Amino acid sequence: MTRKSFGVIKPEIRVLGVDDGVFIPHVESLVLLVGVVFRGGYWLDGVMHTEILVDGFDAADKISSMVMASPHYEQLRVIMLNGITFAGFNVVDIKALNAATGLPVVAVTREKPDLQLIHRALKHLSRSEERWKAVLNAGEIAEVSTRNESEKIYLHAAGISLVDAEKIVRLTSTRSNIPEALRVAHLVASGISDL
Amino acid sequence: MTRKSFGVIKPEIRVLGVDDGVFIPHVESLVLLVGVVFRGGYWLDGVMHTEILVDGFDAADKISSMVMASPHYEQLRVIMLNGITFAGFNVVDIKALNAATGLPVVAVTREKPDLQLIHRALKHLSRSEERWKAVLNAGEIAEVSTRNESEKIYLHAAGISLVDAEKIVRLTSTRSNIPEALRVAHLVASGISDL
Repeated sequence: MTRKSFGVIKPEIRVLGVDDGVFIPHVESLVLLVGVVFRGGYWLDGVMHTEILVDGFDAADKISSMVMASPHYEQLRVIMLNGITFAGFNVVDIKALNAATGLPVVAVTREKPDLQLIHRALKHLSRSEERWKAVLNAGEIAEVSTRNESEKIYLHAAGISLVDAEKIVRLTSTRSNIPEALRVAHLVASGISDL
Repeated sequence: MTRKSFGVIKPEIRVLGVDDGVFIPHVESLVLLVGVVFRGGYWLDGVMHTEILVDGFDAADKISSMVMASPHYEQLRVIMLNGITFAGFNVVDIKALNAATGLPVVAVTREKPDLQLIHRALKHLSRSEERWKAVLNAGEIAEVSTRNESEKIYLHAAGISLVDAEKIVRLTSTRSNIPEALRVAHLVASGISDL
């Protein structure tokens, strides 16, 4: 894995925030997955979308196809994910997504992931060892504060050091304690999808 | 029609921007219509959606149902539309939309609407007189410049004076020469819809 080195991070760094829409758990169906391109923490520059299967295995592939087909691809510097699981337990192997796209991947969560709980939940699903491997591939976790010292968020990173990931996450968390691209990806994905 | 009077306009005034997704002209189908809630020209606060028929008559009703069912309804002060026609010639009667929602409606276009051209195009469609009446109900047009003195945009307004409409449009055009809510509604609607 090559690690991109970031020196000074430009305030207008182009980042993609990815989140999924609403869906009924455990019911086989396609779920909207939205990517929003932000210039740093301020301006929305573009929106893209794809669909993934509830509890499926296609999240990483679908995200990488969506990103690489986008006219924004050349400008993007980082992919940010709202956690490493979408549409239930469709786990994104962030190392694989980094390798496929050539872009650093940072997964952000508001709660500290409970690996034991995830491991237990996965046992009820098909190919649980494959899913668990993708979870473990997320690697080390960093506890970070952004706008508010007392509220912590949690990062996994691939293709970028946790120190650089933290810098970018802090810089782009302009409106809440998570990066604006992820806040807006959540609002768009949940506002557009139907149950 | 009651006209809302705006004194000093707060920079965080909640506005809704509405735009439609991509579609194949003249082919009967449903088109995504997206509403984005902005605080003034800066922060996205929410996203809502509905669907309307290509060349149909349901745009005003669908927008008013979408807005009034939204948890943001009580906070909204203005509805902004990207023009008065959506999904082809599904014309929004802005006076009717104002009456149904109780909210001022401002339609913004980058090009000056050519009424003669619209009149002629409508003649190829069913119930053309009804559509034409909705166009005429948009009333007077104002030519306005926002961020750039040399680029003009055009406004129709219902339930608000053109002077107040212009103030709100200027205040919220932070990133381009149209209000940020409309710029983002366009990016979301076109980024999410498929052909």
